[in-house]
Amino acid sequence: MHIHIENDANGPDALQLPVELLRQRLETHPQLRSHFTLTENSDATHSATFLANADILWAGRKLALDQFAAPRLSWVQVMSAGVEQWLPHLPQGVTLTNASGVHGDKGAEFILMAALMFNFGIPGFLQDQAQRLWRPSFGGCARGKTVLLLGVGGIGSAAARLLTAQGYRVVGVTRSGECSAPVERCISIDAIDEVLPQVDVLVSTLPLTAQTRRLLDRRRLDLLPKRAGIVIVGRADVFDYNAMREKLNAGELAGAVLDVYPQEPLPTDDPLWHTPGVVMTPHCSLDDHAAYLEGCLEVFIDNLVRFRSGRALRNQVDVARGY
Amino acid sequence: MHIHIENDANGPDALQLPVELLRQRLETHPQLRSHFTLTENSDATHSATFLANADILWAGRKLALDQFAAPRLSWVQVMSAGVEQWLPHLPQGVTLTNASGVHGDKGAEFILMAALMFNFGIPGFLQDQAQRLWRPSFGGCARGKTVLLLGVGGIGSAAARLLTAQGYRVVGVTRSGECSAPVERCISIDAIDEVLPQVDVLVSTLPLTAQTRRLLDRRRLDLLPKRAGIVIVGRADVFDYNAMREKLNAGELAGAVLDVYPQEPLPTDDPLWHTPGVVMTPHCSLDDHAAYLEGCLEVFIDNLVRFRSGRALRNQVDVARGY
Repeated sequence: MHIHIENDANGPDALQLPVELLRQRLETHPQLRSHFTLTENSDATHSATFLANADILWAGRKLALDQFAAPRLSWVQVMSAGVEQWLPHLPQGVTLTNASGVHGDKGAEFILMAALMFNFGIPGFLQDQAQRLWRPSFGGCARGKTVLLLGVGGIGSAAARLLTAQGYRVVGVTRSGECSAPVERCISIDAIDEVLPQVDVLVSTLPLTAQTRRLLDRRRLDLLPKRAGIVIVGRADVFDYNAMREKLNAGELAGAVLDVYPQEPLPTDDPLWHTPGVVMTPHCSLDDHAAYLEGCLEVFIDNLVRFRSGRALRNQVDVARGY
Repeated sequence: MHIHIENDANGPDALQLPVELLRQRLETHPQLRSHFTLTENSDATHSATFLANADILWAGRKLALDQFAAPRLSWVQVMSAGVEQWLPHLPQGVTLTNASGVHGDKGAEFILMAALMFNFGIPGFLQDQAQRLWRPSFGGCARGKTVLLLGVGGIGSAAARLLTAQGYRVVGVTRSGECSAPVERCISIDAIDEVLPQVDVLVSTLPLTAQTRRLLDRRRLDLLPKRAGIVIVGRADVFDYNAMREKLNAGELAGAVLDVYPQEPLPTDDPLWHTPGVVMTPHCSLDDHAAYLEGCLEVFIDNLVRFRSGRALRNQVDVARGY
């Protein structure tokens, strides 16, 4: 059984999986020792040769798999949570597992921070500061405020735990309307229109699927109260960024703490850079490079054990569902 | 026994104590009913007349008590936590109780927010955003980082609980080197020089006293590592703001989240407004006006019960200590 590692030569060192590290982990694992042969590549011109012989692929970069002959390939472990770029190219019969959950700890802390920033009016005070305006505003505690959490997967569940512990009332939103995370209640995506008018903080960790694309369009954004702040750490295209920007310009939202954008890096002429109430981080607030590779490797090793024993893999992407 | 309420005519409505509200609270309290006469005033030209007959004073504004004849006055309940402006004017034999603890819940949330903002590099990303620069930086989780908490009183204790629950390693600093809050360890003010070099976030909730004035002078600020962020919600004059500003300009600190200033409102020509890494709120991040009066009233009612039964009052200021 052959595992091939495809690293991204242009990516950061911390995200490359050295074949020696994987070999060492397999050799010290009682159930995985001596079962796999390994190769590693980061030169795109050689990928085809390696894929031709791979049973299992560790993918450190995106590959349009349907453009390769990979007759033995049965399973691909990717290093991202979002997989919308993999799905159109996934050959029939190949299982895809993602890195869902690996972003949870840091992502949850970021979401808690952003929710608190809205409670303390930071987006507004940053604008006052730029104009040297002293305009105190004595609001209440964050505790008891309402967070609508779009997506209760790896990041969302971790965020629900922190927000609930902090006293926020968390309403979770999932496809099914059910989740096991500690939320006050969980609703299905179809039911969000009723809750949007009561929201203090709208948080999205949603993946991009046919159902989620432009879910937060202008009509739904218009249902939010003026006091609401928006936090987006899932896929950007779930939101109509133009509509959101226009509402921020009109003072119809409290602000937006954003880590993701329709185009990345955000073009320098994009008006979002200087939209009032926008606090931007450049798509780095969920990834902890020091811990990320280790987190992905933990999922992979667990999955190799499951694979060997014929059990269902963890983080398996449902192709029809899209995540 | 006569209680006089001195309200601040220039203050917000939410912080005025109506005499009828106090009367109602006393009448519905089994131990306080029918024991007190009450007056209320907010006209400074009449204060002397009212103080001449007061046994107990509820002070909604600052008064230089030594400039009044108040022969019967034995106890003053003030609505602030800091009392450095009361102490030089406090007549011998008058007990002063403050509002310590009333700011705890909101103050703790603000401190947690500020600590998280440093973890996610927000002060730096705000500067990048202003220059339309896309420069991701993939740091780790907040959990495990070190917060040095100067002052573990009402706000500090509440902050220690939230920060510890979030996984921060909290080192408390008190006059005695001891505290009952959930900190990893507690040290005395004299010992902070040894800890400053290991700090990720330095938080001050300290009152202004002879011992704390300019405690964080240039020499001590120079002991902080470059990665450190500063959060000041106690009295501003505990810090050398000029030295802090110079270090921020030189890139020798990660940033500062400030709610208090040496002069308030901060003069429009103060260079702090545009100092890199500074995030400012205009001295409003601890006071929750919706809950503040009720919080102070709760302390006062409790103290009236203690007063009637001859027990020690809660939040009694130690004049020698200065808080």
